[in-house]
Amino acid sequence: MPKGDQTGRSTAAAIRFDVVDSGPAIAAVTSRVAEIGGRIRALATVRRVEGDPPLAEIELEVEGVSETALVKALDGLDDVRTVHLTRALDSIFGKRIIVVGGGAQVAQVALGAVSEADRHNLRGERISVDTIPLVGEEHIAAAVRAVADLPRARLLVLAGSIMGGDISVAADEIRAVGIPIISLNMVGSITEHVDLVVSDPVQAGTMAVMAIADTAAFDLDRQRGRKF
Amino acid sequence: MPKGDQTGRSTAAAIRFDVVDSGPAIAAVTSRVAEIGGRIRALATVRRVEGDPPLAEIELEVEGVSETALVKALDGLDDVRTVHLTRALDSIFGKRIIVVGGGAQVAQVALGAVSEADRHNLRGERISVDTIPLVGEEHIAAAVRAVADLPRARLLVLAGSIMGGDISVAADEIRAVGIPIISLNMVGSITEHVDLVVSDPVQAGTMAVMAIADTAAFDLDRQRGRKF
Repeated sequence: MPKGDQTGRSTAAAIRFDVVDSGPAIAAVTSRVAEIGGRIRALATVRRVEGDPPLAEIELEVEGVSETALVKALDGLDDVRTVHLTRALDSIFGKRIIVVGGGAQVAQVALGAVSEADRHNLRGERISVDTIPLVGEEHIAAAVRAVADLPRARLLVLAGSIMGGDISVAADEIRAVGIPIISLNMVGSITEHVDLVVSDPVQAGTMAVMAIADTAAFDLDRQRGRKF
Repeated sequence: MPKGDQTGRSTAAAIRFDVVDSGPAIAAVTSRVAEIGGRIRALATVRRVEGDPPLAEIELEVEGVSETALVKALDGLDDVRTVHLTRALDSIFGKRIIVVGGGAQVAQVALGAVSEADRHNLRGERISVDTIPLVGEEHIAAAVRAVADLPRARLLVLAGSIMGGDISVAADEIRAVGIPIISLNMVGSITEHVDLVVSDPVQAGTMAVMAIADTAAFDLDRQRGRKF
């Protein structure tokens, strides 16, 4: 891992609320959070609510303050409506493995990864397996780059039959920010730009989960550059 | 859909940047965005970067401003380091189907959903299939509730052999915010609290994708309450 600290679960206070859908109203929320000493970890508009005025339903996670203090602070704002306590997403969906590539291969990698995640989640882990089937160098390269922007993404599996070109460039970029990659054995340069190459997609999914599970003995660093 | 507008892709400007990891530094960013007339759609800490001072790497999506204006505005802030243009996550990963339940069933639902998403994504859709295998009423109910907090979540599939109790309560809650549910046919009250019941997990995954794809003719409203 060249960069960053991705371990440990947050202790963020999490709430969902409706707010008037305007720049100033959202800025009032973020300012209020800063005033009470909070650091925003996540803020996401999960839905728009039609009406007069239109509202945005927002999920907010904040570190450094209690849930009670957060609810109290936001309840005092004019533009904020119903506030619900929720739970920080990392405590529910945990670490994410992202699987990108051709549908046939993505489905088999998911089969292996979900089965293995099931075993680790039974022992207290929280591992999600998130997938998108895509075709074409441009679309896959964009998805690879975007994995760096996904909260809680911990490992990428590239599942296909031929990948290279800009996908390999994108692979180097996201490994540089600390996200390892497992690829299937396939045609193209991609296998020279990943941490591990695995021929069987079910095993690739299984190894992906083992690589990020604290409950597994598998150490990707010790296997780096190998092909199975 | 009782509530909310979940259609249409955003035209958000998206950037990723490093910022000093403090409440005031993040508040300075959100205030600056409001000053230039932007509405924050998403802000997520994707990584921590150790150092002196410690930095947070943040993905930010803003509506109502151009990427150029956003980059210029943030580049002028003392606590903001390297700024990269990225792409709004909905333009990459699109709509999300969330599959929750037992590993064996989740894997089969994912097989059907990924295969069907592959076909629609080839025609210009962007559909992701995101999964987590979990056991136990408490954990599954918490995950069901948290689907309401997930950006871009459009449909939930409950995949298991027995679900009820608080899971059924949670199912009613997320349907009330506009997220439909397909469940497998199973033991327990859950089948009375979902939009559609499907016995075959591969078909359940397929139907889930058809229900949210603009490129499909399937209309969940017309099938509501049926069992297959």
